Amino acid sequence: MGSKYPRSMHCCLPLWTLVLEVALIVIFFFFTSYDTSSQDPKKLMETYRVLQDVTIMVALGFGFINSSLRRYGWSSVAFNLFLLALAVQWAVLLDGFLEQLSPKKVVIKLSSIKLATMSAMSVLISAGAVLGKTNLVQLVLMALVEVTAFDVTRMIQRKYFIKDNHVNMMHIHVFAAYFGLMVAWSFRRPLHERVMEKDQTAKSSSLFGMLGTLFLWIFWPSFNSALLLDSPNERKNAIFNTYYALAVSAVTAISVSSLAHPQGKINMNHIHNAVLAGGVAVGASCYLISSPWLAMVLGLTAGLISTGGALCLPD
Amino acid sequence: MGSKYPRSMHCCLPLWTLVLEVALIVIFFFFTSYDTSSQDPKKLMETYRVLQDVTIMVALGFGFINSSLRRYGWSSVAFNLFLLALAVQWAVLLDGFLEQLSPKKVVIKLSSIKLATMSAMSVLISAGAVLGKTNLVQLVLMALVEVTAFDVTRMIQRKYFIKDNHVNMMHIHVFAAYFGLMVAWSFRRPLHERVMEKDQTAKSSSLFGMLGTLFLWIFWPSFNSALLLDSPNERKNAIFNTYYALAVSAVTAISVSSLAHPQGKINMNHIHNAVLAGGVAVGASCYLISSPWLAMVLGLTAGLISTGGALCLPD
Amino acid sequence: MGSKYPRSMHCCLPLWTLVLEVALIVIFFFFTSYDTSSQDPKKLMETYRVLQDVTIMVALGFGFINSSLRRYGWSSVAFNLFLLALAVQWAVLLDGFLEQLSPKKVVIKLSSIKLATMSAMSVLISAGAVLGKTNLVQLVLMALVEVTAFDVTRMIQRKYFIKDNHVNMMHIHVFAAYFGLMVAWSFRRPLHERVMEKDQTAKSSSLFGMLGTLFLWIFWPSFNSALLLDSPNERKNAIFNTYYALAVSAVTAISVSSLAHPQGKINMNHIHNAVLAGGVAVGASCYLISSPWLAMVLGLTAGLISTGGALCLPD
Repeated sequence: MGSKYPRSMHCCLPLWTLVLEVALIVIFFFFTSYDTSSQDPKKLMETYRVLQDVTIMVALGFGFINSSLRRYGWSSVAFNLFLLALAVQWAVLLDGFLEQLSPKKVVIKLSSIKLATMSAMSVLISAGAVLGKTNLVQLVLMALVEVTAFDVTRMIQRKYFIKDNHVNMMHIHVFAAYFGLMVAWSFRRPLHERVMEKDQTAKSSSLFGMLGTLFLWIFWPSFNSALLLDSPNERKNAIFNTYYALAVSAVTAISVSSLAHPQGKINMNHIHNAVLAGGVAVGASCYLISSPWLAMVLGLTAGLISTGGALCLPD
Repeated sequence: MGSKYPRSMHCCLPLWTLVLEVALIVIFFFFTSYDTSSQDPKKLMETYRVLQDVTIMVALGFGFINSSLRRYGWSSVAFNLFLLALAVQWAVLLDGFLEQLSPKKVVIKLSSIKLATMSAMSVLISAGAVLGKTNLVQLVLMALVEVTAFDVTRMIQRKYFIKDNHVNMMHIHVFAAYFGLMVAWSFRRPLHERVMEKDQTAKSSSLFGMLGTLFLWIFWPSFNSALLLDSPNERKNAIFNTYYALAVSAVTAISVSSLAHPQGKINMNHIHNAVLAGGVAVGASCYLISSPWLAMVLGLTAGLISTGGALCLPD
Repeated sequence: MGSKYPRSMHCCLPLWTLVLEVALIVIFFFFTSYDTSSQDPKKLMETYRVLQDVTIMVALGFGFINSSLRRYGWSSVAFNLFLLALAVQWAVLLDGFLEQLSPKKVVIKLSSIKLATMSAMSVLISAGAVLGKTNLVQLVLMALVEVTAFDVTRMIQRKYFIKDNHVNMMHIHVFAAYFGLMVAWSFRRPLHERVMEKDQTAKSSSLFGMLGTLFLWIFWPSFNSALLLDSPNERKNAIFNTYYALAVSAVTAISVSSLAHPQGKINMNHIHNAVLAGGVAVGASCYLISSPWLAMVLGLTAGLISTGGALCLPD
């Protein structure tokens, strides 16, 4: 990555990132403190479990899905971790400043890290579109700009349009897709090396891709219900509907993928697209849907559209 | 898979599966509704955690164990997901109809999805025996027939013999093994391609096989205690005994496997067999055993028998 | 492993281990019983969750990190499981005898298995230093001796110096590192085969190494807060500080690693070292630190030292 740049360019990145880290530490020093209010220990652990589910989904799921898509192997997993760790720190600060305008200090709760991890996900979705076209400095810049843009959008939405935190957050997928496309468009460049090594690593990479897909499949209900902690009934609906939509979209995608191939073989990218599409399709409305068939129809549609779209588009 | 069939055959599967999915959606539309009774949110999340543990065990554990056994690579993981997603939908319906005979509508609870996932496991165990000998249409048929047979067996047992849900469910392993053997026997056929590509992918596949084995090893206590939610003491015993049986059977299998090999190397299939055997050995009785040594003796026996059996049988 | 030993040597191990297992079963038969006191079911499940987190970290995290470091492939994962299963059984007994000196029977609680798993971690850390230099018999011996030494040290500490369980346990890293170095030093021997097969398996192994690293990264906050169940505030602090230290050390390590490489590439060992260093750096004091910037400074220092150290040392 970035082997076309002169030596001096490479020195920039770590110095830049180290300066950024030191700056973040200084900001944290002056402006933040931990939440010291005594809390229900049961509730604390519940939030911790949800945070972990989201982290597993983001770090393992997105990390390994990119590893198979881009043929970058483990370095894409490492960049994923890098962007996640950086974006969460920035998003915690930003969320704090935008939400708690009056008090001097940002109070860090476990739920603010959860929220920040979900905001950081927008960076990782976009990164999937531009990985291999940017160097690390550009990725860091993209992470900071995207988290800022996403958080400001969310704050404006929350203030003037929709009060609900959950719905705001679910716009993440649309936002991230457009942002990623925009960045990818501005960085378009031929990628000779990537195409050449495509076939060599296909087999083992696909298994890692399936691993990432399964982590997304398993933990997506946690993600879709992560911001509905206050209402157990809405939360239950979100879990149910996400589960059903994902189940149907996986079955649909595997069937259609098998139909399209002359020997009836399955294309792994279709499964992974369908899982993403199924989860996104019920994302915003999952807590409102009150019967399984509606979620299943959404899953079926998402599976058909995503697989059909992938079949029609040139690879 | 299925490369010996004409083109028309391949079209059948996705059409068949799509028709099946639409039929399922229609049945769900007319006959099901979500559980709307207000529930203790703590209990809800507890059930959700157990459901996730079982899903991880079934999707990741069985998926990756098959990936190394059958040398099918990622497609066996994909078929595993496909069968799981389909079997759960069917099992939820069937469980509902068989259990709630009087009311018109099947009420879907989080615990019914948990139960359905456990029933679907019987399909995935059997699928391990027939993978590579059947095409997808046959797998789908097998999934539907097996879930139906298993659920009807369970209902008859529950009605006339043993009331206890947990014991009924633990017959899953015996049922699945015989069902799988029966199906495998009726589909026996030479498998030239499979044998040829066996050696190429051994190394990386074995690591994935270990990954699947570890997921089974870690989450088996959750599985064995999943239906004992009401009695904390029985649940505790189930967790303890499963843990000890698995620990002893893993140690035994690795030792015996190393003894059998001329250079003292370990055969991974032995470990994976021993983990399965250890978990199954204490499955039905795990909540009754009241001291660790009994569970450990069961684990030792299971480890010796499974590894010894694998050594005596031709591969 | 151990291919230089005569056949008779290989027979020793499994017989030795089987005798050991039978001896353990006999000891468990005479001296242990399960905890039968009725417990709060919520608390029981909470302990079970923490136990599982620690088991995932130890079995998956350390297993797959060693798989990439030592190029042993899946057998290092299997040895990891073997040592874990054996060490936990021994540590439960030993903890019981050392702690409950008066009563005749050792009462096994879920929390004693949790504590035993954490003690067993010392064996697995040390095993990373000697894997490939010892045969299985030596590893088993090392496991027993090390757990005994570590538990006796902890008991003496607890009795005469520091009462706190958490701080005692966090000395695990220092203890394990020195113990491993000592054992490695006494077994030093050239390793021709290992060096030769180093390059062949690099790509896929690295992805497994990243998998192990991510499991450590995700579950380290659970580990550092595992013994702070009684005080929700200390627990919260431990989770916060570990999270921030790990985030900063990952970012630092990736940046510095990229600076050191002439083409700006990342060395995976640096990331994995930094994750370990970041988690260890806040280990003992994580519940006392009361603001994020201190944890971040510790993480930055740990990342710089571990990556800098790895760069200066010959590989």
